[in-house]
Amino acid sequence: MKFATLHDGSRDGRPVLVSRDLRRAVDARDIAPTLLALLESWDRHAPALQQRYAALNAGDVEAAFDFDPALAMAPLPRAPQWCDGSAFLHHGRLMERAFDTPPIPEFDTVPVMYQGASDDFLGAREVVRLPDEAQGIDFEGEFGVIVDHVPMGIAPERALAHVRLLVQINDWSLRALGPREMKAGFGFLQAKPSTSFAPVAITPDELGSAWHEGRIHMKLHVGWNGERFGQAHGGAMNFHFGQLIAHAARTRRLSAGTVIGSGTVSNAASEAGSSCIAERRVLEILAHGAPRTEFMRFGDRVRMEARFDEAGPDAAVPAPFGAIDQQVLAAAPAER
Amino acid sequence: MKFATLHDGSRDGRPVLVSRDLRRAVDARDIAPTLLALLESWDRHAPALQQRYAALNAGDVEAAFDFDPALAMAPLPRAPQWCDGSAFLHHGRLMERAFDTPPIPEFDTVPVMYQGASDDFLGAREVVRLPDEAQGIDFEGEFGVIVDHVPMGIAPERALAHVRLLVQINDWSLRALGPREMKAGFGFLQAKPSTSFAPVAITPDELGSAWHEGRIHMKLHVGWNGERFGQAHGGAMNFHFGQLIAHAARTRRLSAGTVIGSGTVSNAASEAGSSCIAERRVLEILAHGAPRTEFMRFGDRVRMEARFDEAGPDAAVPAPFGAIDQQVLAAAPAER
Repeated sequence: MKFATLHDGSRDGRPVLVSRDLRRAVDARDIAPTLLALLESWDRHAPALQQRYAALNAGDVEAAFDFDPALAMAPLPRAPQWCDGSAFLHHGRLMERAFDTPPIPEFDTVPVMYQGASDDFLGAREVVRLPDEAQGIDFEGEFGVIVDHVPMGIAPERALAHVRLLVQINDWSLRALGPREMKAGFGFLQAKPSTSFAPVAITPDELGSAWHEGRIHMKLHVGWNGERFGQAHGGAMNFHFGQLIAHAARTRRLSAGTVIGSGTVSNAASEAGSSCIAERRVLEILAHGAPRTEFMRFGDRVRMEARFDEAGPDAAVPAPFGAIDQQVLAAAPAER
Repeated sequence: MKFATLHDGSRDGRPVLVSRDLRRAVDARDIAPTLLALLESWDRHAPALQQRYAALNAGDVEAAFDFDPALAMAPLPRAPQWCDGSAFLHHGRLMERAFDTPPIPEFDTVPVMYQGASDDFLGAREVVRLPDEAQGIDFEGEFGVIVDHVPMGIAPERALAHVRLLVQINDWSLRALGPREMKAGFGFLQAKPSTSFAPVAITPDELGSAWHEGRIHMKLHVGWNGERFGQAHGGAMNFHFGQLIAHAARTRRLSAGTVIGSGTVSNAASEAGSSCIAERRVLEILAHGAPRTEFMRFGDRVRMEARFDEAGPDAAVPAPFGAIDQQVLAAAPAER
């Protein structure tokens, strides 16, 4: 099944089912008032949703309407929790060089993960308002999962059974603020403005064999101002999502609707490019002694779209999550 | 005004107004379905709430009932966001020694703050279930504020006008897990199980002159298994709550219902004791070369109660937030 949440003026939006080809949608609010409510009682609602989804794909729903991703909020405009791992170790090792921070203990065996803000997620086409270009505005292409209620202390293999939805994420970062926050040891806060999501959250079965061993085996195509920037493959995750969920749940239970992120998708192969600017800059330093790529400027756009392996970025097969396509602009100055 | 949220079987509970003396309560659900909904439209709801609160204190509400703190959830059982500062620098400097971590850059001029989980706050009398005594179970007595919608980039002085409610917090910590997470630089996650709250959240005017300059000028009385442990004064905060709110809002707006914590209340005077075990252990190391106090054991209880300066811990003046009084027990082993 595929889900989106449409703007309706409310804080949590209106849940809809979206057809497999992302062309049509139908209201789901009569089944549950929000996507979060749906996740909280998933087993109870699943049969009715399955039935409606099948009818939608068959063109048999009279109340169906055209799906417009520009009207989509984040699938969960506010989630109970957002925990983001750094499960692509190739990226993590490069970022240690970028930030000039000491090596992270047990980096290969224990996932690192930060607690992010989840009160204000942005939709795939929403303008991103940020205060200052000098803060090193960067995108970060990621995959994520949304779980139902997870008990404390769950094992990684069992944790995968709690994955209800898969999502595609742009975890915005302000790179100039990151190193200081890492050195303080309290984690990222100012360095992480509101995170953005592709318009459609999908059940794992929608990916067929591209979802296996707790990983999304798809390329994440990233474009910056219309130019190809990266196409790293999600299958290279060094920790799978079950390990990340178990890490988050080691000392506390997780509420239904908790989002767990993969960290920036990253491959060692140079033809994969990068899913964030900071990583490319480190590679430039290693190759040329200095970075050549600047961070984003106001007015810039970034596009992110996960595609099945057999399809290139321009093929006719639709990207199953839809596309993130966002512009960064200056925030209005606050009253001071 | 004073507010609590009572267990009613739902995830967000039932909002009530509590009388100034904490003896009586009256339903507020007809005004707003949850305390969060109330915070989201504070100005609209305030007049009706004020009127009902005045009648409750006058004994003029027929539907009033006895307030039982044992039935209270956290005032916000799940909040949009939880950002906890470390605004008592005396505590922070001691913790650097406890954790053997490098000095935090700009510690005196820029607040440190971690993003915590806010999906599963515990009530003042709820049993705290934790997986392992060996993880160094510790309480941390704190104060906090709950804000309405805060724009990005707000100045500290203006930020104080967004404080709607004051709260008293026990920010549980697992000390054996903290140093590794600090060294990884991604902040606390496994080291911070669910945070607990005193039963009653109060508007700042309830404290009279004990709320001024963005600080709560009250002693936080902490008892461990019935023995006095600390009575540190909240007025010693090196950063005020306006500074902490502005820090959290530097690069993003804050949703109504965001909780901002002071960090562990801590005074340099030795008669103040401590508000967490880790701090006492560092003081023991400095005095005797080794810690003498162990962390909590399953079955232990901790009690925390903020009292006005003129009242000792046994005086008849009620503590305006009520008391946190919790027992720690072993969590049931998870299915693995």
